[in-house]
Amino acid sequence: MGINLTRTIEWKAGSVTTIDQTKLPNRTSLLKIESCDGIAKAIRTMQVRGAPLLGAVAAYGLALTAFHSKAKDKDQIMRELAASAEILKRTRPTAVNLFWALKRVMKKAEETRGDAVDVVKAVVDESQMIATEDVEANQKIGKHGTNIVDDGDNLLTHCNAGSLATVGYGTALGVIRAAWSDGKSIKVIATETRPLLQGARLTTYELLRERIPVTLITDNMVGYIMSKGLVDKVIVGADRIVKDAVVNKIGTYTIAVLAKEHKVPFYVAAPKSTFDMNRLAEDVIVEERNIEEVVKFGDMRIAPKKISALNPAFDITPMKYITAIIYEEDVISPEEFQKLSAING
Amino acid sequence: MGINLTRTIEWKAGSVTTIDQTKLPNRTSLLKIESCDGIAKAIRTMQVRGAPLLGAVAAYGLALTAFHSKAKDKDQIMRELAASAEILKRTRPTAVNLFWALKRVMKKAEETRGDAVDVVKAVVDESQMIATEDVEANQKIGKHGTNIVDDGDNLLTHCNAGSLATVGYGTALGVIRAAWSDGKSIKVIATETRPLLQGARLTTYELLRERIPVTLITDNMVGYIMSKGLVDKVIVGADRIVKDAVVNKIGTYTIAVLAKEHKVPFYVAAPKSTFDMNRLAEDVIVEERNIEEVVKFGDMRIAPKKISALNPAFDITPMKYITAIIYEEDVISPEEFQKLSAING
Repeated sequence: MGINLTRTIEWKAGSVTTIDQTKLPNRTSLLKIESCDGIAKAIRTMQVRGAPLLGAVAAYGLALTAFHSKAKDKDQIMRELAASAEILKRTRPTAVNLFWALKRVMKKAEETRGDAVDVVKAVVDESQMIATEDVEANQKIGKHGTNIVDDGDNLLTHCNAGSLATVGYGTALGVIRAAWSDGKSIKVIATETRPLLQGARLTTYELLRERIPVTLITDNMVGYIMSKGLVDKVIVGADRIVKDAVVNKIGTYTIAVLAKEHKVPFYVAAPKSTFDMNRLAEDVIVEERNIEEVVKFGDMRIAPKKISALNPAFDITPMKYITAIIYEEDVISPEEFQKLSAING
Repeated sequence: MGINLTRTIEWKAGSVTTIDQTKLPNRTSLLKIESCDGIAKAIRTMQVRGAPLLGAVAAYGLALTAFHSKAKDKDQIMRELAASAEILKRTRPTAVNLFWALKRVMKKAEETRGDAVDVVKAVVDESQMIATEDVEANQKIGKHGTNIVDDGDNLLTHCNAGSLATVGYGTALGVIRAAWSDGKSIKVIATETRPLLQGARLTTYELLRERIPVTLITDNMVGYIMSKGLVDKVIVGADRIVKDAVVNKIGTYTIAVLAKEHKVPFYVAAPKSTFDMNRLAEDVIVEERNIEEVVKFGDMRIAPKKISALNPAFDITPMKYITAIIYEEDVISPEEFQKLSAING
């Protein structure tokens, strides 16, 4: 249990250390990455995952390129950074935080006056700032979110929107952590989240460490336990919030429909870096991952050879299913979110 | 691929041969059982499963006791049969076919005149008849059911309601087989059905053998693919149909709610031996199985130690979510089913 969940990614003199999330909960294995290519690989294989963490990790990918660059002038380092940004953009298409962070760091680099060394410093500093701001944002999300949690609530969450999905504290699990540390007697129901089991492997792991009561269920039990009155509220994270919908881990939409049918409030907790104000659901590319993730379990086949399968990594929940969005400034209704997006968009 | 799916259980001179369903699809392994205790164990461990098959297999459990009995008179063999029936009743509580078959065989035994040998013959014959009638019933279900299938339909099914869940042909998969052999161009979507993956392991296996197109999905993808218009109809089996609800594999209710939300018709295919006319949903015991099935995958742990989990094997779908019930005599609405239950009840 030696890993640090209050800061899941650390920068130190040209290397980034983070947790290999594919090995949890059986092994806690640290990953030391020293190049942008290494970052891209860790993202693709989901050794690191979770929308806010992907933002920080992508920024650090640029920081690694900058730090190890032998560029002599600003033009050259900008070309190297642009090439790295291209590699990072092609890793995973859905979580917007990744694109947001790359854009922010590249903008900072461009605006930096001076030569290559100045750009290196600016890029590293900006990446550090993105990581630090993420933890702060999540703590604010927790503070606002705790207001929607009642003493005695049974809270259902999907996938992992915890410390492991962020730089620390978590979004949906940030709300749960905040409510718990406010002394509210809550219980969490974690869906296992097939195919990669982030709920079974990661969410339970985080909550057990903090002694917050948690019960694991398979994804297909949600309807049944809601029909038995065992869920008071749903709280999930998000990979991207567009004007008309929330994009999140596959299975989120199924839970949202069930919540509506059973009149269970459905909350989404996410920082502003997840907001994609100018886009609609129809603009979002839902990543289709390799079907090996579905037909195998580790090395064990669970379906016959030559079977066809689907593996969308995300789904899209229209705003009408969502009670409120919890972000670092407030808890707002979908209508209020849409007004916000009209102003910021 | 050497196993016989047109007759999944065979009686031969005091032994029963069936397929070990826990080994599929990686290994096709036959199970030879020679005692009622062996039958009870195979039921508990789900080496045999599926409501109609459990009826036949329980009957054969009594047939094994009868066949190997050294009883001298009818009283003695009746005591032995009653003891075996008690053992079999305690295996799994939800599928009603098991209780129905035991009752039917015991009644036959009681009504048989003569001594122990006559009872043995009557019990073995009645068990054989239950198995044979099941295949016939499923073929009739297929014949009626094909009328609700349109050319080009995408049919979603859950768990395995195929040959492997019955003595042959299947209920929900019987309808699919009948539609396919009528030349209808259909495609099947199979949910993997956690925790024991009967959809991924068994349904795909059966359909691939008959070259019926099938695509595997995880249970939590159902909402998403329905929202994309990829499902025209849902067809599932049942473990028990009571006056006001259908009891079936965990996850069925979740799919039924999603079907209602997306206006996708939801059909249940099951023989009359599954009908439990005098009972209501509230009377049904939903089996809670060992949580090891949820927290482990084969020998591999997928959740931290000491985690708490739920493992209800079934859920309950109220009649309002059901478009029609397909049985060996007809395709009927829930209202018609309730009238039927008023007459037969």
